[in-house]
Amino acid sequence: MQKIVIALGGNALQSKGSAPTAAGQLEVVRRTCEKIADISTEGYEVAVVHGNGPQVGQILLASETAQDVTPTMPFDVCGAMSQGYIGYHIQQALRYALRIRNRNFPVLTVMTQMIVDEKDPGFAKPTKPIGAFYTEEEADRLVREKDYVMKEDAGRGWRRIVASPLPQRIVEIEAIRSLWDSSIVICCGGGGVPVVEKPDGTMEGVAAVIDKDFAAELLAEQVDADILMILTEVEKVAVNWNKPDQRGLDHMSLKEAARYVEEGQFAPGSMLPKVEAAMKFVRTYPTKKAIITSLDKATEALAGETGTLLTFA
Amino acid sequence: MQKIVIALGGNALQSKGSAPTAAGQLEVVRRTCEKIADISTEGYEVAVVHGNGPQVGQILLASETAQDVTPTMPFDVCGAMSQGYIGYHIQQALRYALRIRNRNFPVLTVMTQMIVDEKDPGFAKPTKPIGAFYTEEEADRLVREKDYVMKEDAGRGWRRIVASPLPQRIVEIEAIRSLWDSSIVICCGGGGVPVVEKPDGTMEGVAAVIDKDFAAELLAEQVDADILMILTEVEKVAVNWNKPDQRGLDHMSLKEAARYVEEGQFAPGSMLPKVEAAMKFVRTYPTKKAIITSLDKATEALAGETGTLLTFA
Repeated sequence: MQKIVIALGGNALQSKGSAPTAAGQLEVVRRTCEKIADISTEGYEVAVVHGNGPQVGQILLASETAQDVTPTMPFDVCGAMSQGYIGYHIQQALRYALRIRNRNFPVLTVMTQMIVDEKDPGFAKPTKPIGAFYTEEEADRLVREKDYVMKEDAGRGWRRIVASPLPQRIVEIEAIRSLWDSSIVICCGGGGVPVVEKPDGTMEGVAAVIDKDFAAELLAEQVDADILMILTEVEKVAVNWNKPDQRGLDHMSLKEAARYVEEGQFAPGSMLPKVEAAMKFVRTYPTKKAIITSLDKATEALAGETGTLLTFA
Repeated sequence: MQKIVIALGGNALQSKGSAPTAAGQLEVVRRTCEKIADISTEGYEVAVVHGNGPQVGQILLASETAQDVTPTMPFDVCGAMSQGYIGYHIQQALRYALRIRNRNFPVLTVMTQMIVDEKDPGFAKPTKPIGAFYTEEEADRLVREKDYVMKEDAGRGWRRIVASPLPQRIVEIEAIRSLWDSSIVICCGGGGVPVVEKPDGTMEGVAAVIDKDFAAELLAEQVDADILMILTEVEKVAVNWNKPDQRGLDHMSLKEAARYVEEGQFAPGSMLPKVEAAMKFVRTYPTKKAIITSLDKATEALAGETGTLLTFA
């Protein structure tokens, strides 16, 4: 059986434009899990990695808003909470979607810590805004009192910004590997809770945002997956995006992908990290493949009918 | 090797009397994990179940307080978040405590759903207060708009009360069983996220509080554990509690325990559910044993030197 790591984007968890309620998330997650169950039914061994941007933002915002009544939770803890929240919904919905397909095997969420390098250049240049908006005065106080890095956000106020370091090592990888044969594992949620390893061997949670596509890629490498599938909002990766000569790509070799990246074809923080994660996977395992497509077209893309396939050559 | 399920009480997670910060929890959890690692080092196969009362209350309170800026999370989701929060800390601290003892095996938190019976008498008579305090007016509105059951709480205001049904079935039990041999599993946190199973097979989260000692007992039954160990604040279960003739018990047979329960020796919501969970375990497996003791005395109690041992005869 082929092993596949599926990375779910934000649109697989919540609808754009409606309030981010738990009920709304569950509804979207149920539809998403129909697709994942279809992939499992076709005979793939599946692991699921999901993003957590809006959810961890919501948890942090609630915690910061309530700071006068209950202590504010640090960002690593908010990340762990978001893994609980999203994993619970996926696990519940996916189990049912498998069951109605007569595939009664376990689905479980494994709380995942992701080691990042304290010396990652990301820490010197934080870029990711998180949490609530503050006035300039409040922002100054947070810089003084909590050593936060704060940045003015397009006239809407000041927000904390944190680093986005590269994921280095999945702390729970052995257990995740041992579960592969018998279960569908939901792990590395939100890219994993970022931790640094201290010289004495202790782990310490840090305030950082890990790209979930890079986390999914690392997982795919470490479980020796055959396919890395990154699901997003578009059916195919395109060049000349939003121009008259926009063109969807059926296939990219590693070399072609590198050229497009160099040309600046892919938007940073959006399609670029997805293409880079896919490139890293086929560079590491030249016989394997990465697919970028939309959730709706996932099974067709696996059958080679659509999506963008990335291979070494 | 003997299998042991350890149920951790609130004092194993947070200090009484200090603010419930994440940093404070991590500090207490680190000490707790030293004890768990000692038990593992003595050759036991360990699973850990923890309570979540204060933590889930804190998460719900933050969410309710922030309701004007971000949607309030339902109680089942708050429970899932608390499993993420507490599991993350235990997993991080326990891995280190094992490592310095040269026991490098995986520790992982499994998000756990617990099936409860919709017809459980608990649902007709909710008793557990959760979340924020409200004025009578706000309470009336919540009853009308959200169908909450609200109760006045000793002059401090009105609070929502929810059911405390008995745990019936651990949804993720197969996966937990398959992890036993190779890992230390943290599961059924806060008694598990309460779900009911609908006739069509879907699971649905419900607002309820599951007793973590009963959840630990069910887990111990279902993994065929040799020992159920319930850790609390006192070294021994006592009769005539707080009276001049208070007496700590070294041992209770099932019959003796039943008599003490009938005499009203144990406080409901405190020692009573612990003794009842222990009784259920030895009633189900008459050759096995349950121990109730304090975290500090856990290894001594396992060696038979202190604590209260409950056996069938």
